[in-house]
Amino acid sequence: MDLASLIRDVPDFPIKGVLFKDLTTLLQDARGFHEAVDAIARPYRGQQIDVVAAIESRGFIFAAPVAYLLGAAFVPIRKPGKLPSETISVEYTLEYGTNTLELHRDAIKPGQRVLLVDDLLATGGSAKAAVQLLERLGGQVVGIAFLVSLTFLKGADNLPGYDIYTVIDF
Amino acid sequence: MDLASLIRDVPDFPIKGVLFKDLTTLLQDARGFHEAVDAIARPYRGQQIDVVAAIESRGFIFAAPVAYLLGAAFVPIRKPGKLPSETISVEYTLEYGTNTLELHRDAIKPGQRVLLVDDLLATGGSAKAAVQLLERLGGQVVGIAFLVSLTFLKGADNLPGYDIYTVIDF
Repeated sequence: MDLASLIRDVPDFPIKGVLFKDLTTLLQDARGFHEAVDAIARPYRGQQIDVVAAIESRGFIFAAPVAYLLGAAFVPIRKPGKLPSETISVEYTLEYGTNTLELHRDAIKPGQRVLLVDDLLATGGSAKAAVQLLERLGGQVVGIAFLVSLTFLKGADNLPGYDIYTVIDF
Repeated sequence: MDLASLIRDVPDFPIKGVLFKDLTTLLQDARGFHEAVDAIARPYRGQQIDVVAAIESRGFIFAAPVAYLLGAAFVPIRKPGKLPSETISVEYTLEYGTNTLELHRDAIKPGQRVLLVDDLLATGGSAKAAVQLLERLGGQVVGIAFLVSLTFLKGADNLPGYDIYTVIDF
């Protein structure tokens, strides 16, 4: 199945000049969604993943079924003020401004094997921030998986030394 | 497995006087997460669900694996400005202020059998708004499933005539 063909290009979103990769058209295709989840999970079967971590909120859509398939726990990394208990946080820079991500302080036990799953690798800024949070709690980030990679943005350069897996490369 | 015991009470979140049901402690338990997803999906197996719809963003965590298990498409209902293509929207009132939800205009085909999945039923305001969006596009809402229901808030009264299923009732 050609998963890439199910992704819609939306020009000028979220700002003028950006060609946005809209994954909702893939999600709307039951077989496409199923295959995408299977493809993300496949390399990690039998790798004893304890925790699948995901970045709010599109990341949740792929990471949660992958956690289910791998028999792993699910840990959400969220925008400020969303997690109710004690958190740790990290700020990172974007092309335009900064963003902050938060993680519950008790979300990861030291030594747990963590797979980070997100929908799309662009510059890698949010994934890098997420990895920092997970490692600060002693998590062992054994892989970072994305459904889509925009290779021309060279996001993988922002994640040196990590095992990165992408299903669809543009 | 006692799923309710995996849920953490956080006092005074998001505002003073509210006892928040924190599901992240359940998600952190791999078996608990797996059982919760199975429990939500179970009544709908064999019911020919075409689409599982979910409300941003905690709803995604349970709805996406349920969509996967049921072989259904996944349709996100999101906060304003997040969906890139043409949307329809609905505004609804909260205890404090109003909220808006959006749905892609092409997300549902008329006659499709839709299951709405969310994490928690409180007053039912967001679920009611989501149902309105789905029906405006011709979707047939054949069920609304929640992992948790705060029964003292009588949210089901806000969703008369719908088939509501909840796994854990407080």
